[in-house]
Amino acid sequence: MIDLVEPLLAGDRRALARLLTAIENERPGVEAALAALFSYTGRTWVIGVTGAPGTGKSSLVNALAKAYRAHGETVGILAVDPTSPFTGGAILGDRIRMRDLSGDKGVFIRSMATRGNLGGLSRAARDAIRAFDAAGFDRVLVETVGAGQSEIDIVRAAHTTLVVEAPGLGDDVQAIKAGILEIADVLVVNKADRVGVENTIRGLKTMLELGHPASRAQLMQHHGQLLPADTSSNGHNESFWLPPILRTVATDGQGIDEVLRAIDAHREHLLRTGILQLERGQIEIELHERLQAALVARFLSQIPVDSIAAIIDRVQNRAVDPQGAVNQLLALMELPKSLKVNE
Amino acid sequence: MIDLVEPLLAGDRRALARLLTAIENERPGVEAALAALFSYTGRTWVIGVTGAPGTGKSSLVNALAKAYRAHGETVGILAVDPTSPFTGGAILGDRIRMRDLSGDKGVFIRSMATRGNLGGLSRAARDAIRAFDAAGFDRVLVETVGAGQSEIDIVRAAHTTLVVEAPGLGDDVQAIKAGILEIADVLVVNKADRVGVENTIRGLKTMLELGHPASRAQLMQHHGQLLPADTSSNGHNESFWLPPILRTVATDGQGIDEVLRAIDAHREHLLRTGILQLERGQIEIELHERLQAALVARFLSQIPVDSIAAIIDRVQNRAVDPQGAVNQLLALMELPKSLKVNE
Repeated sequence: MIDLVEPLLAGDRRALARLLTAIENERPGVEAALAALFSYTGRTWVIGVTGAPGTGKSSLVNALAKAYRAHGETVGILAVDPTSPFTGGAILGDRIRMRDLSGDKGVFIRSMATRGNLGGLSRAARDAIRAFDAAGFDRVLVETVGAGQSEIDIVRAAHTTLVVEAPGLGDDVQAIKAGILEIADVLVVNKADRVGVENTIRGLKTMLELGHPASRAQLMQHHGQLLPADTSSNGHNESFWLPPILRTVATDGQGIDEVLRAIDAHREHLLRTGILQLERGQIEIELHERLQAALVARFLSQIPVDSIAAIIDRVQNRAVDPQGAVNQLLALMELPKSLKVNE
Repeated sequence: MIDLVEPLLAGDRRALARLLTAIENERPGVEAALAALFSYTGRTWVIGVTGAPGTGKSSLVNALAKAYRAHGETVGILAVDPTSPFTGGAILGDRIRMRDLSGDKGVFIRSMATRGNLGGLSRAARDAIRAFDAAGFDRVLVETVGAGQSEIDIVRAAHTTLVVEAPGLGDDVQAIKAGILEIADVLVVNKADRVGVENTIRGLKTMLELGHPASRAQLMQHHGQLLPADTSSNGHNESFWLPPILRTVATDGQGIDEVLRAIDAHREHLLRTGILQLERGQIEIELHERLQAALVARFLSQIPVDSIAAIIDRVQNRAVDPQGAVNQLLALMELPKSLKVNE
């Protein structure tokens, strides 16, 4: 795997493709390659695109990529599907829709689906973004299908997050977007030529006023109150970036330039204010996840498999509750040390 | 918190409500109460209900609860919204739709939303199911809004999982359901009085034939091949339960009895075959998650906060890659031991 590093840095697209496949399949040697690439990352601008099904995210990503290409910028596209472990209905659709980008060497499109393990996809997505970054793409567009926690985890690796909405998707879908609204840096109402667009925009404005942290912060400032630092946020909010609401018809390019300008405005805002905190927060989350995985792996290698099977039996028979079982397992690991103390 | 245990076991609904609130808010003392309740669990039948937005899951849950009540069974309903950390659009809607169940002491409805931390919601949902279980409800219906990985994690705590579909939701939504199809024990096509229902059913049949593990297994058996044991599955599949596809119009009760019968058929199937493996798999996942949390908490308590801040700095400056940073942190913990070895 390490032999891919040099060609990838030199712009070889096949090396990039091979590394991305290795990342998705968690092949051995990937870690070493990513470690070697790491010092070449941190140059691209990562744009997350998420939103409920039916909003036309893929068409929007397509249109954004074309617009960036028209400005001479190179674009990596990562289409992530956290919902489908085994087929690629949506992914296939994306590919078809992105057909008019193919043949252009300044664009590289990659789809990625789950391999079933929890958290594995957001980790793979993060590593894939780094591969694009080291390969020198000016922009990386990360599109997620759906609107749940997994999507939020994935776009957390982005610098600027677009939340896409569309008119006429029904109440149930409207409700879904409440959660992802919090992570929006730019709100895009796509399919804006449809009836009901004014309702959608009015709804978004109301939700923004009620729900967005920056909006709450601004309201508080407006009322002359002191704002408590929000350490749990990703750094977007403390500096009062209120997401603009933009209209697009992605399929014919309407409104795309405005989205590009909003992304750049958000970028300039972040570079001026919270980029370091944003990156720090992202690194902290990543180290936490990697630490978890490493600690569990090491622990399990120290405990006999029989003990684990035995403790599962005891939980199943209701002889011990799950947290009690974990405490017993932890005590097993400490046993040698305490024996020494007793000697 | 521990004082809630006795009244809860005696059927006191206020004690249940208070414990559920404590679970959702991760109050201290919850663990002790849950540990005390654990030996009274394992009696209820947990039914997960999931599916894409707009399929009418809440109406279906409502209709199922009414039908169980008509058969004299008590029902706990847990409506989980993994997408919304701060508002309850969908949850509010659910409550309105479930109005006609209120006033019946044999039904208890509870909504739950995220508190922001990863994995916290599926843990809280699992604990809430246990509270319902210990409180003696015959059935627990767990409804999730949305269709992503978080929902899959939540319904993983169920015995029987219903995946709800509806005609005319568009291609994008159709694609989303591919992932959740794998976890379906019963497929329900709700809003079956709508045009396009035959298309929806045909689509589901095709996807089942192509994609469902039990279906693949049956195909293989049909061709006389030996079936490799699928240890990664939750035990549903090895015994060849192929999900039935049922039609309902939940709002006027059409088809609900058939869903009840399918749930009972699946229950009998599981009790005859894979219930122990299913439970074992669920316990294993839970112990893994709890072990992770415990190991990280213990590790962080042993490492000076300064070292962590310093290592984040080094990653941010690209002086070390994230996995290298984790390795350095782990080495910090082992330092005293290796010093001892050198003495």
